[in-house]
Amino acid sequence: IFNKSKEHGILERLNAGEVVVGDGGYVLQLERRGYVKAGHWTPEAAVEHPEAVRQLHREFLRAGANVLQTFTFYCSEDKLEISGNVTNITGAQINEAACDLAREVANEGDTLVAGAVSQTPCYLNSQNETEVKAIFKKQMDDFLKKDIDFFIAEFFRYVEEAAWAVEVLKTSGKPVGATLCISPEGDMSGVPPGECAVRLVKAGADIVGVNCHLDPLTCIRTVKLMKEGLEKAGLKAHLMIQPFGFHTPECNLGGYVDLPEYPFALEPRVVTRWDVHKYAREAYNAGIRYIGGCCGFEAYHIRAISEELAAERGFLPPASEKHGLWGAGLQMHTKPWVRARARREYWENLLPASGRPTCPSMAKPDGE
Amino acid sequence: IFNKSKEHGILERLNAGEVVVGDGGYVLQLERRGYVKAGHWTPEAAVEHPEAVRQLHREFLRAGANVLQTFTFYCSEDKLEISGNVTNITGAQINEAACDLAREVANEGDTLVAGAVSQTPCYLNSQNETEVKAIFKKQMDDFLKKDIDFFIAEFFRYVEEAAWAVEVLKTSGKPVGATLCISPEGDMSGVPPGECAVRLVKAGADIVGVNCHLDPLTCIRTVKLMKEGLEKAGLKAHLMIQPFGFHTPECNLGGYVDLPEYPFALEPRVVTRWDVHKYAREAYNAGIRYIGGCCGFEAYHIRAISEELAAERGFLPPASEKHGLWGAGLQMHTKPWVRARARREYWENLLPASGRPTCPSMAKPDGE
Amino acid sequence: IFNKSKEHGILERLNAGEVVVGDGGYVLQLERRGYVKAGHWTPEAAVEHPEAVRQLHREFLRAGANVLQTFTFYCSEDKLEISGNVTNITGAQINEAACDLAREVANEGDTLVAGAVSQTPCYLNSQNETEVKAIFKKQMDDFLKKDIDFFIAEFFRYVEEAAWAVEVLKTSGKPVGATLCISPEGDMSGVPPGECAVRLVKAGADIVGVNCHLDPLTCIRTVKLMKEGLEKAGLKAHLMIQPFGFHTPECNLGGYVDLPEYPFALEPRVVTRWDVHKYAREAYNAGIRYIGGCCGFEAYHIRAISEELAAERGFLPPASEKHGLWGAGLQMHTKPWVRARARREYWENLLPASGRPTCPSMAKPDGE
Amino acid sequence: IFNKSKEHGILERLNAGEVVVGDGGYVLQLERRGYVKAGHWTPEAAVEHPEAVRQLHREFLRAGANVLQTFTFYCSEDKLEISGNVTNITGAQINEAACDLAREVANEGDTLVAGAVSQTPCYLNSQNETEVKAIFKKQMDDFLKKDIDFFIAEFFRYVEEAAWAVEVLKTSGKPVGATLCISPEGDMSGVPPGECAVRLVKAGADIVGVNCHLDPLTCIRTVKLMKEGLEKAGLKAHLMIQPFGFHTPECNLGGYVDLPEYPFALEPRVVTRWDVHKYAREAYNAGIRYIGGCCGFEAYHIRAISEELAAERGFLPPASEKHGLWGAGLQMHTKPWVRARARREYWENLLPASGRPTCPSMAKPDGE
Repeated sequence: IFNKSKEHGILERLNAGEVVVGDGGYVLQLERRGYVKAGHWTPEAAVEHPEAVRQLHREFLRAGANVLQTFTFYCSEDKLEISGNVTNITGAQINEAACDLAREVANEGDTLVAGAVSQTPCYLNSQNETEVKAIFKKQMDDFLKKDIDFFIAEFFRYVEEAAWAVEVLKTSGKPVGATLCISPEGDMSGVPPGECAVRLVKAGADIVGVNCHLDPLTCIRTVKLMKEGLEKAGLKAHLMIQPFGFHTPECNLGGYVDLPEYPFALEPRVVTRWDVHKYAREAYNAGIRYIGGCCGFEAYHIRAISEELAAERGFLPPASEKHGLWGAGLQMHTKPWVRARARREYWENLLPASGRPTCPSMAKPDGE
Repeated sequence: IFNKSKEHGILERLNAGEVVVGDGGYVLQLERRGYVKAGHWTPEAAVEHPEAVRQLHREFLRAGANVLQTFTFYCSEDKLEISGNVTNITGAQINEAACDLAREVANEGDTLVAGAVSQTPCYLNSQNETEVKAIFKKQMDDFLKKDIDFFIAEFFRYVEEAAWAVEVLKTSGKPVGATLCISPEGDMSGVPPGECAVRLVKAGADIVGVNCHLDPLTCIRTVKLMKEGLEKAGLKAHLMIQPFGFHTPECNLGGYVDLPEYPFALEPRVVTRWDVHKYAREAYNAGIRYIGGCCGFEAYHIRAISEELAAERGFLPPASEKHGLWGAGLQMHTKPWVRARARREYWENLLPASGRPTCPSMAKPDGE
Repeated sequence: IFNKSKEHGILERLNAGEVVVGDGGYVLQLERRGYVKAGHWTPEAAVEHPEAVRQLHREFLRAGANVLQTFTFYCSEDKLEISGNVTNITGAQINEAACDLAREVANEGDTLVAGAVSQTPCYLNSQNETEVKAIFKKQMDDFLKKDIDFFIAEFFRYVEEAAWAVEVLKTSGKPVGATLCISPEGDMSGVPPGECAVRLVKAGADIVGVNCHLDPLTCIRTVKLMKEGLEKAGLKAHLMIQPFGFHTPECNLGGYVDLPEYPFALEPRVVTRWDVHKYAREAYNAGIRYIGGCCGFEAYHIRAISEELAAERGFLPPASEKHGLWGAGLQMHTKPWVRARARREYWENLLPASGRPTCPSMAKPDGE
Repeated sequence: IFNKSKEHGILERLNAGEVVVGDGGYVLQLERRGYVKAGHWTPEAAVEHPEAVRQLHREFLRAGANVLQTFTFYCSEDKLEISGNVTNITGAQINEAACDLAREVANEGDTLVAGAVSQTPCYLNSQNETEVKAIFKKQMDDFLKKDIDFFIAEFFRYVEEAAWAVEVLKTSGKPVGATLCISPEGDMSGVPPGECAVRLVKAGADIVGVNCHLDPLTCIRTVKLMKEGLEKAGLKAHLMIQPFGFHTPECNLGGYVDLPEYPFALEPRVVTRWDVHKYAREAYNAGIRYIGGCCGFEAYHIRAISEELAAERGFLPPASEKHGLWGAGLQMHTKPWVRARARREYWENLLPASGRPTCPSMAKPDGE
């Protein structure tokens, strides 16, 4: 399975038409496991509890991920300071430890390491290009001390800041992917997805798309608009998607943060593996080739992407040894009505109950 | 925090009136992480992927668990054979490896190790007491080669088989807890919970209660009926509870297995940490002192038990360093409407949306 | 169709094994049409707006009702006084006008007139048998001035008061039916349904059953318990049912009054005609032969009873000329997907959406 | 109350800034009452059962309607022929009878009579302007034999046909209102609402708006788009709205016909009186002054419009004598928790349960 050479970088794969399966979400999952503080969401666990980060990396790898992102979300110095969650660990220490962890696990498979940066408080406060770029430069320099394959600038509400990040990261000479956490309505300044994509590509991004904030099918709609924008502008870029792993039918501009359930009661919204099968297929059909997940995507969701696209990729991931396709593992159940669930049609058509008859199915987002 | 001595065994703790926090569920969680095969549910990962089992043990320990159960569910030879999932690993190997893993992590805190046995196919097929008891004896002997503190016989649909298990395990001289996976209607033979409890205590169980199959508040109702039965019979025993971590308002006799969503679309039913706060308080008020979880209970659910009962226990668990109580970590959020969620009343009263407007809130159980 | 003779009274019909279709609800429907005041629910419209009452009677008759109840709910002098809704019309005037209206319309078909009395405030305040019986005697005397076929004592929360009503009404020499508005748990004093039925029959009731308060399938459960009670006591009586026309899955003791939606937001709960088909069949199978409805049952619901039991009765009601069975009228629709709805299976299996994604599917009843 | 003179026509009222309350829906309601055949929806009841039509007119009038539409929906000869529901009654007979009925009841109050025409099968089949206009001309001539105050052309899916109707009706010299049954996306040819409004006004319509097909708040959005279109074009017209009385959150192009529940399981979607209060206020605030309802709007819904806009109109309707505002009639209830519902805040904030835990809250529309 793991016969692909290291020279086989992210662009080589995408240029060759391969499907690249991304990893899932780290911060929400590690919050649940007891290693990340909700509301702060900073990644000091890379230093404090490397075994926990390593294990989660490994789960994604076994699920078929071709890329492991460094666990460096919100790991800019200005964000760490504001959060006040860590006093004795520097951003550089976290960034470096995170690179080592991702690399260590990536070497267990045919997997690349992406150094990840995300939006900064500095941009919101100052919109000062020089200051913001200096922050990204500092993070990039941390990463470049280590062995990473390419960069991802992700979770940007404003395309302007994302473009600045791309411009900085491109100075490394490595490939750069950029994803915005925006709705089909566009970024928080009202720039529509198509124009966002154009700006990112003009800034130098090799891969563009969206991540987080809204559910998989909504994110596909947004990426489609990006694709249309690029085509109209006569530009080319690879497309990527790493959506939120929870149903957000309210499809509001601010995304999950504005849902009343955020962040401690999102459970009923979490997508099933079958939702992910559908998502993976639709993303593929939309021409997206870098397909992963963000917050809420656990290892079994990533495995579902790998299983849905097994024919296109030519193989199943290691974890599928522990997973019968489409519920096959139920064929041996003692109850006949459970055995009857061991088939694709059953799970594709099931409308799962919430088990919460006094709760609604949609919320009124706050702040709107 | 971890100053309690090893001599402080399970019965010493319960006799002293302490709250014992149990651990959560292993098989469903390790299925999601890619290490257990759904439908088979056998624990060969203890041998194949010890790092994954060790990490999950550690998460429960950090969440405040006073007991780690060995990862030995369905690990009787007859079940392993039927499942056909493992050919080159024996039950004894798994049992022994599982004991070592639990002990290794338990030593990181003030935590006991419980050797766990569960219902056997043999009972369903033969109801032959001699054969069934021989199976339990074999598992017990595996455990006794290792350093375990007490036994739990769990996940029994029939009180008769559970009583046999208790009788075998009592020959070890170690304390024995016994939990049935039954509804308030009683076991699958129609024996009501009160009578079930009496039989288990008469068989020698020191601790009795229920686990799995139905949601927390339903399980409390069942344990209350057990308590009443014991009181009427003039018997005494400690009470324990390790419920299913999903809402099951259908409250059907067969439990979650008969819900159409089992086992691959249960997501919308999973309990929130706030559901667990309520559960922990009600269980405590019902006089139950061994309070944990089963399938669906992740580390953050166990942490919620520890946090709800922090005053009674006198301390918070290690993972609470990474968790503001009642959403306190949101106080620093940039959006005022998110900051407004940093309070107990908000989360206690929230009715979380499913995000699935085309799905129902209750299912029609199969097989009824 | 209307060839049955007038001598064919209620008991003759039931003794002959005929299905008697009851009428539907008056007060909620006339509140919506603008003639009854919510919260007061008194029937002065019989005097003030006879055309409105006459029209509703006629709708039920055309839908196949074999009985029209006089529009005399809550028309005891003590209730009228408390309501304070009418100052210049006496109870006697209303009772007499209501008898005339029911008779006038009943003569348009093969339909009987039942004089109806219901629970009194006097009982709640005094429990004084003499006073309460005097009230029923006064109402009965009003009715006996007019041409009615039999009596119904309905909507009693306490079997004691209902039995008193029956004892009074039996002095008329006419048949008497008696229905309680109780749950399967029994009346508000805790008398179980079986015992309630026994008491009513011993008081002289020829027909016993339940009306209002809870949804059709719940009411069937209660009547079954009544039947069992009668059988155990070696008593015989005809069974009747006139349930609430709204879904009440909460199945609470106090019935719809305690639901938060009562009385001005019950709309989403209203039963469909297909719910009524199922109800009529189950009621028939349970041995109930007087099958009608109460609040929420409109003419088309009564028509659905008549259509479901057309084979048993031997005819369709007049209004079925304007109603294709099982959606047959859609066969000529221009859209093929609407034509596809012109069949029984479609409607029997449809799970209708509420159109209210921010609302729950079950409420928490007040007062419990 | 009824002191306004007859000379006070529809345009005089609207020009004076008065609120004109429309009537509600006839065909769905008369189907339920047993007088209209579902799927056919033709109005032969005006001849066959005048008392039923008269009573419904009267309910709307008592609820505060300033206009009664003639019960002539789908009463073109070509539609009657296709429906095949009536063989011995001509369209002219129905049109004339319907005019007489509306006039008779209108004279009981300060109410106008509107002759109503609707879309024709002929248009769908031929798009032949001459033929279609001949059909409208014939209906208009029927109406002009009788005493009607103005015309309404309603329930048009295509603005082209509606404009033809308007052109014909304008030849009468009477005022003409025109409503389309379209979504905010525009008519079935894709003409956006703003342009639709412009075409209708250019064709001669004095009042334009939407009716049926989608729920009240959706219809307001569509009328707002019409208003914007007129303003951009520098045109002026009065605005009217007569929405569907059921929640349609799916907001699909084809409207309620494509919902799986149409037409026999729409019950859970029906709007409450409190939904109508909100609708009436929002419609008023949007500048709409002719505010009524279509299918699903019963008398109590129209009364809710009248009550919400009582201050603006200066009076309450007759039926409000039988309706305490905002639940006031509950103040005298015996249960304190029911008395607590006698206030505006309670009903405005209530999220009513569907009582259907196995049903979804939104449907997947057919034909899309």
